Amino acid sequence: MILRIIATGGTFDKQYDPLTGQLVFGESAIPSALARARITVPWQFEALMAIDSLDMLDSHRQQILAACERSAETRIVIVHGTDTLRETAEVLGQAQLPKTIVLTGAMVPYRIDQSDALFNLGFACAAATLCAPGVHVAMNAQVFAWNAVRKNRGAGIFEGG
Amino acid sequence: MILRIIATGGTFDKQYDPLTGQLVFGESAIPSALARARITVPWQFEALMAIDSLDMLDSHRQQILAACERSAETRIVIVHGTDTLRETAEVLGQAQLPKTIVLTGAMVPYRIDQSDALFNLGFACAAATLCAPGVHVAMNAQVFAWNAVRKNRGAGIFEGG
Amino acid sequence: MILRIIATGGTFDKQYDPLTGQLVFGESAIPSALARARITVPWQFEALMAIDSLDMLDSHRQQILAACERSAETRIVIVHGTDTLRETAEVLGQAQLPKTIVLTGAMVPYRIDQSDALFNLGFACAAATLCAPGVHVAMNAQVFAWNAVRKNRGAGIFEGG
Amino acid sequence: MILRIIATGGTFDKQYDPLTGQLVFGESAIPSALARARITVPWQFEALMAIDSLDMLDSHRQQILAACERSAETRIVIVHGTDTLRETAEVLGQAQLPKTIVLTGAMVPYRIDQSDALFNLGFACAAATLCAPGVHVAMNAQVFAWNAVRKNRGAGIFEGG
Repeated sequence: MILRIIATGGTFDKQYDPLTGQLVFGESAIPSALARARITVPWQFEALMAIDSLDMLDSHRQQILAACERSAETRIVIVHGTDTLRETAEVLGQAQLPKTIVLTGAMVPYRIDQSDALFNLGFACAAATLCAPGVHVAMNAQVFAWNAVRKNRGAGIFEGG
Repeated sequence: MILRIIATGGTFDKQYDPLTGQLVFGESAIPSALARARITVPWQFEALMAIDSLDMLDSHRQQILAACERSAETRIVIVHGTDTLRETAEVLGQAQLPKTIVLTGAMVPYRIDQSDALFNLGFACAAATLCAPGVHVAMNAQVFAWNAVRKNRGAGIFEGG
Repeated sequence: MILRIIATGGTFDKQYDPLTGQLVFGESAIPSALARARITVPWQFEALMAIDSLDMLDSHRQQILAACERSAETRIVIVHGTDTLRETAEVLGQAQLPKTIVLTGAMVPYRIDQSDALFNLGFACAAATLCAPGVHVAMNAQVFAWNAVRKNRGAGIFEGG
Repeated sequence: MILRIIATGGTFDKQYDPLTGQLVFGESAIPSALARARITVPWQFEALMAIDSLDMLDSHRQQILAACERSAETRIVIVHGTDTLRETAEVLGQAQLPKTIVLTGAMVPYRIDQSDALFNLGFACAAATLCAPGVHVAMNAQVFAWNAVRKNRGAGIFEGG
């Protein structure tokens, strides 16, 4: 088994720019997070895009779908912004690929104190390893089906239903 | 579903004592790690013991087994030292409890730079949520059966077989 | 000797708000930074304001001046945003108080990976302890006089002259 | 002015070895700490030795003295283990070099959560910049003369007298 991990940006990968004082995208933190996790399962990393999920257009979601379609690996983790994670999950879910696709993200960037990113990445890697083919959302230590999840923005959590 | 998370000590929970310069056990880092992970699945935490797994006696393993037996929750994560994690997994595996038990640990303590602990905890929580009843070892982003795993101490990783 | 440390906000104290994805002000990190530094010199902490230094008005600088004037302690560290740190230093410098006042800040927030904040706080505490009365800017491991310093925004550093 | 920073080991620079579970010495963290601090004052770094200060022999202290003697820079920070920091300060102090020498260390290693190392390094750099020639100990946000300081091991702090 080989895991494919696809970065699309989102809070997980935001970093602080000292010159502008803004949170921006640079090199993805995911490869160093995986090295730190000492994972021995073979993996492929793909830095597909680096955008805030509020800025995602249909064309971006089609790019993500195309990346899943062309992936030789059948177990895929997608790191995505949480705000429109559900919308991307829907596009992927409706495509009914014969692959296990797990979307995850973070509420606090990997490089910021008390981030949930590393936990979520670990949780998502296990979900991609263990779940049946289909599209799943892994957040808050829960696995949700793509068509039965929503983000509660006031609480900052994902909920079923 | 409710997750039970049992701390037994091990590298995961070691912390630095400024007065002695030694790595020691104090309050477990696991509850704060779970809070940081923003998990919404209900969980119970049990600080069963806090010892180095090289110091574990049969009596300690029997205590861990008893904790699993009396657990009302059927999905259990045990945070354990890596050196004798396999031996404890064997005691639990032979007991054939009708529960999903996942043992994990860390190669670098949670409170030390570049620790794998948070990733492993996330991975193990997903494995405990998704695996069938039985005893599993979750390390290095892999799930191993209790009777088909060993620690390669030279490389610092777990391997199948 | 007692050190007075006055928080005014700035990059040093910005923290990430998971719900809005913005860097905002909450409780100052300075008291916990000082505890972590294990300092034994007596100190007083004053959370005077919590604003971005680009938002500082003359009235804010007058508040900071008033805080220095009423301070019983004659050795004062002010943690300030870097963008208008020089302007505040000028207001304080022209007042010619018989006190040692050291302004410092950070290019990366204390709570973000690879922050310079803790180093700067240590450097500024030493400068406040050792410098003669007057107003000084302590950044980039240098001590500048209030009337001979400017921020090079392109490079993100303070320079003399 | 150029700062010379000399590493000798000590708690400051200890790092965790995942294979042995011990705190050991590897590459010094000081150059990356200085880069992170965004310091613009010119500096020279010298990795003189990497030992626990409890293991320091007279010959080691003579090596440190020789390094100070041959240093072209007259402002020197020495990062040292805290347990015998005072003894080394005494050897240096009695040599009466016409240089400003500041010894510092850490109670918690740089790479461990809640370390005082970065604060101490900042404090010591300022002390080396600002103090008159002589040998000083900078710990706990205080500057002590070499012949008027001792470590209170029970409390884990340095005290005057």
